[in-house]
Amino acid sequence: MKIVITGGTGFVGLTLARQLLKRGTLPGPKGTPEPIDEMVLFDMVAPVEPPKGLDDRVKIASGQIAERDQVFHIIDRDDIGVFHLASVVSGEGEQDFDLAMRVNLDGALNVLEACRARNSRPRVVFTSSIAVFGGDGMPAKVGDSVKQTPQTTYGMTKAIGELLVNDYSRKGFVDGRSARLPTVVIRPGKPNKAASSFASGVFREPLNGQPCILPVAESTVMPVLGYRATVENLIRLYEIDGARLGTDRAVSLPSLDVTVAEMIASLKRASGNRHLGEIRVERDPFIEKIVAGWPVGSDGARAKSLGLITDDGLDAVVKGYIEDFLDG
Amino acid sequence: MKIVITGGTGFVGLTLARQLLKRGTLPGPKGTPEPIDEMVLFDMVAPVEPPKGLDDRVKIASGQIAERDQVFHIIDRDDIGVFHLASVVSGEGEQDFDLAMRVNLDGALNVLEACRARNSRPRVVFTSSIAVFGGDGMPAKVGDSVKQTPQTTYGMTKAIGELLVNDYSRKGFVDGRSARLPTVVIRPGKPNKAASSFASGVFREPLNGQPCILPVAESTVMPVLGYRATVENLIRLYEIDGARLGTDRAVSLPSLDVTVAEMIASLKRASGNRHLGEIRVERDPFIEKIVAGWPVGSDGARAKSLGLITDDGLDAVVKGYIEDFLDG
Repeated sequence: MKIVITGGTGFVGLTLARQLLKRGTLPGPKGTPEPIDEMVLFDMVAPVEPPKGLDDRVKIASGQIAERDQVFHIIDRDDIGVFHLASVVSGEGEQDFDLAMRVNLDGALNVLEACRARNSRPRVVFTSSIAVFGGDGMPAKVGDSVKQTPQTTYGMTKAIGELLVNDYSRKGFVDGRSARLPTVVIRPGKPNKAASSFASGVFREPLNGQPCILPVAESTVMPVLGYRATVENLIRLYEIDGARLGTDRAVSLPSLDVTVAEMIASLKRASGNRHLGEIRVERDPFIEKIVAGWPVGSDGARAKSLGLITDDGLDAVVKGYIEDFLDG
Repeated sequence: MKIVITGGTGFVGLTLARQLLKRGTLPGPKGTPEPIDEMVLFDMVAPVEPPKGLDDRVKIASGQIAERDQVFHIIDRDDIGVFHLASVVSGEGEQDFDLAMRVNLDGALNVLEACRARNSRPRVVFTSSIAVFGGDGMPAKVGDSVKQTPQTTYGMTKAIGELLVNDYSRKGFVDGRSARLPTVVIRPGKPNKAASSFASGVFREPLNGQPCILPVAESTVMPVLGYRATVENLIRLYEIDGARLGTDRAVSLPSLDVTVAEMIASLKRASGNRHLGEIRVERDPFIEKIVAGWPVGSDGARAKSLGLITDDGLDAVVKGYIEDFLDG
């Protein structure tokens, strides 16, 4: 079978690709395990250097998710499974509304329509976000049964994506699943335009011996999930029998709900004798406003009952990152 | 100022148009009352005969809400207010997914984009529906704080409409409001393709001396609202200061939650000595399945706190209908 990962050359996309290549098989549209003989990582721009850990089953295709023909071009087999990760992120979406609508809304529609056109009811995992929650009535802990009143364009388009995945699945056009992601940590590389970017930076920059300037107070609470558990959950959600998801195919992934101060404490504990760059707070009202609208806790009970996992504490996430990116 | 009513030659649209013409003024985009000097009723097809009760301020424009240029063409003044009623209904949406997406999703986007392009932050009232609710976790009583897991394509597109109206308003592109309508009764004329069409037919056909064949059991409970109160609420929701709506501009209109048996009893009480056509049940699985997925109660507390109204009992709705359409 063929696997398509949109946003496939991003950090989560590449980590997912490598894991899938290791596994070698996934359920096809009929639900029985099939060997993965082709994988396309679709993304805006091709990476300058070929990413490590891939093999000749993989093709990197650059293109625009908002361009219908391009999406139909890569979803060109009936025995196919799709992980739809491509997305404008939160901060970027607040700065460019039209871009967020094109990439996140038109993009999701293109993926769903291309899958529908195969007539094989392909499995689709869509990455939603905890940013679907927000607004006056938001409870302290959000979850699968909480009303979605997003306060960013990013969150709005993700909420729409969940609705589309549910209805395309109900109609039998696709066998879809939405993974509602908390903030994924620790992303390697450079900061991105997500308002939550600091939640990776607070670990990454000090571990690289660089200073980290935090745009929010240390008391800020964020639901986070390590990238290893995130990727494992995307695969498990793909593998689950869709009937188990009932009428709502969107699942809040289990998270660790931690303060920035706890992130810093964990970093210090887990990093051993490494020299750490300085961390200091310089509050940024643009970032603070977005983050203040997000939930401070997430209920992952349904996800856990479906066999999805959370991290074994934040220290384990830090140690995993050191293992994967610093000691390697 | 100019008022545009999309779906304007439908029953609710025309009733609304007549009420607005009587009032003569509405708040413009700046919030101060302005005389209505122009009104466009935009709809798929022009009515064969000119509707009664309109005057020379009104123009009927036929066109497609899914055609961006046509929508931009009618939203052509900065001092404008829009009531966006045009919609594929529930049964029709289940039969033709693509039509529902074009009319309900593209249509809503076209209206919001055309208003945004005016740069005057026009007021927009969007008619959503109680069909946004459904699914495994639906509580007995739905309302503004309840998670939306629609089980029809119609409901899904309405839920998306609410999300769009909220975000376009948050961004300052429009000053939007969504009125979440229960089943509106009693619609005159012929049955339509809404799965809830029988809730008008059960009154209308017998009052016309015609038989009414009910597709659902008499024990079926439906939240309903009379058309007079519905139209009054659309106008009141338009008039409210948007800031009072907070971060969620979608409001469940107050309803009467009644069984079909209660509808029949009310009809018999309120119709006096009129000869009534026979009512009999012939259950229709297609309709029953859609209706079974809908809520049986709706909480209108927030709407009432905002000054919206409900009917003074079902008998009053029947009497109003007789007054408006049979005794007139």
